[in-house]
Amino acid sequence: MQEIKEYVHTVQYYETDKMGITHHSNYIRWMEEARVDFLAQIGWDYAKLEKLGIFSPVVGITCEFRHPTTFADRIAIRASVSEFRNVSMAFAYEMRKEDGTVVFTAVSQHAFLTADGRPARIRRDHPDVFEAFSRLAAPETE
Amino acid sequence: MQEIKEYVHTVQYYETDKMGITHHSNYIRWMEEARVDFLAQIGWDYAKLEKLGIFSPVVGITCEFRHPTTFADRIAIRASVSEFRNVSMAFAYEMRKEDGTVVFTAVSQHAFLTADGRPARIRRDHPDVFEAFSRLAAPETE
Amino acid sequence: MQEIKEYVHTVQYYETDKMGITHHSNYIRWMEEARVDFLAQIGWDYAKLEKLGIFSPVVGITCEFRHPTTFADRIAIRASVSEFRNVSMAFAYEMRKEDGTVVFTAVSQHAFLTADGRPARIRRDHPDVFEAFSRLAAPETE
Amino acid sequence: MQEIKEYVHTVQYYETDKMGITHHSNYIRWMEEARVDFLAQIGWDYAKLEKLGIFSPVVGITCEFRHPTTFADRIAIRASVSEFRNVSMAFAYEMRKEDGTVVFTAVSQHAFLTADGRPARIRRDHPDVFEAFSRLAAPETE
Repeated sequence: MQEIKEYVHTVQYYETDKMGITHHSNYIRWMEEARVDFLAQIGWDYAKLEKLGIFSPVVGITCEFRHPTTFADRIAIRASVSEFRNVSMAFAYEMRKEDGTVVFTAVSQHAFLTADGRPARIRRDHPDVFEAFSRLAAPETE
Repeated sequence: MQEIKEYVHTVQYYETDKMGITHHSNYIRWMEEARVDFLAQIGWDYAKLEKLGIFSPVVGITCEFRHPTTFADRIAIRASVSEFRNVSMAFAYEMRKEDGTVVFTAVSQHAFLTADGRPARIRRDHPDVFEAFSRLAAPETE
Repeated sequence: MQEIKEYVHTVQYYETDKMGITHHSNYIRWMEEARVDFLAQIGWDYAKLEKLGIFSPVVGITCEFRHPTTFADRIAIRASVSEFRNVSMAFAYEMRKEDGTVVFTAVSQHAFLTADGRPARIRRDHPDVFEAFSRLAAPETE
Repeated sequence: MQEIKEYVHTVQYYETDKMGITHHSNYIRWMEEARVDFLAQIGWDYAKLEKLGIFSPVVGITCEFRHPTTFADRIAIRASVSEFRNVSMAFAYEMRKEDGTVVFTAVSQHAFLTADGRPARIRRDHPDVFEAFSRLAAPETE
């Protein structure tokens, strides 16, 4: 099983708000940053998937903001595939400050669509993608 | 019972992404825009609450992205208080395009904190705030 | 000569930073908001221009941040065409707070490109667009 | 003379727009990212300056968008102090894609203010800061 490196995001000044902390909307963007990085690491980056005609828009998010962060904090983000099916998948995220405090957890749900917006049938049309993600979603069986 | 006007957000060019649609992270920001507008309409705007030493950071969000939107779409947003307790509250949101399509629904959970980050005790320290929000959370009993 | 209404942007919480003021990068986005609104008012909105195959990317900006603004400030923005040529144009912007203080001024330079990224020849290919913008750039001669 | 490492920003999906390229407003944010990184490298990071009561808001920007960039591009940013005076300073920026193409150049003007918003007198009150930045602004005389 491939070792996935955590993605690190350093909080920018423009990501803070007048409460002096990171504005909560930015964590949603960091989820995407970590997801993009994760997919690049496993060799199925966005560009490659989009070239195959596979788009995976976010269709739902559930998240908890556990501790505030602020400017210059380095946030380590662990992304993983928490669920994979033929027409949808889910990613889980955990973000921690350098002292180890968990600051944010989330799950994002994704659909698989073709370029023209119809459900993509991964198993049938992209068996190698199906295979790769199935394995990620059930690492314990490796 | 006061009539709350829906908040309208027009999608900006800078809110779209290379898929040609609104980037999903922006809906989280529009939730805040609608919440701010809602609180101003009921006479308990952010500035007033913060002056009283009441902060209400977002501690959790659950949301569904139901239909894409894009540049120049006018999004009507209905915000409402879906839950109110002494130390926390929740807002519910429904966003619709002009043709009536529901494009996004969400609930945000909020804590009540004092300026120094401790739980605010709304009922004891701010009975008028407690009264106002309690009524909003249970409009059917009006 | 058509009367152009000023565009109003209300500063959002997520646009503030930990200095307690609006982060400077947002003014660049409000320039676009005002430009989009201006073009819609004169009947040549982005969608219409893009449908004609005319794209007008920003190629340069010069701006001055004169006074800070913050959450909930209502910013009135006056946009105008300050220069128009066959292959490029410029917009000028002035932003004021409700008390009349000028908080920001700027000029943005734009190229005219076709969908495939080549210089568009407005005068030859879109004489009505050429006519409309020429008039805007020299209102004193009306 | 200390060697300053270039700052690298990887373009995020949420930074693109429906033209398929990076939205121009993001370059303004990357200027800040590079400036923050530059100041950290020379040992005068934002946090340290703000602790000394020195704030340096952006008061003006002049920039040119020379070539488009898009999702996943790695942008190398060279920031430097182009001017330093007792009450103000300027940074210059050059951004390049991996193939060496210069995509963006800019200069940002900054004031030095105290925490209460008055002009800071760097030479008198912070001679070590004055010394450090003076040297950076005139490296050729080193």
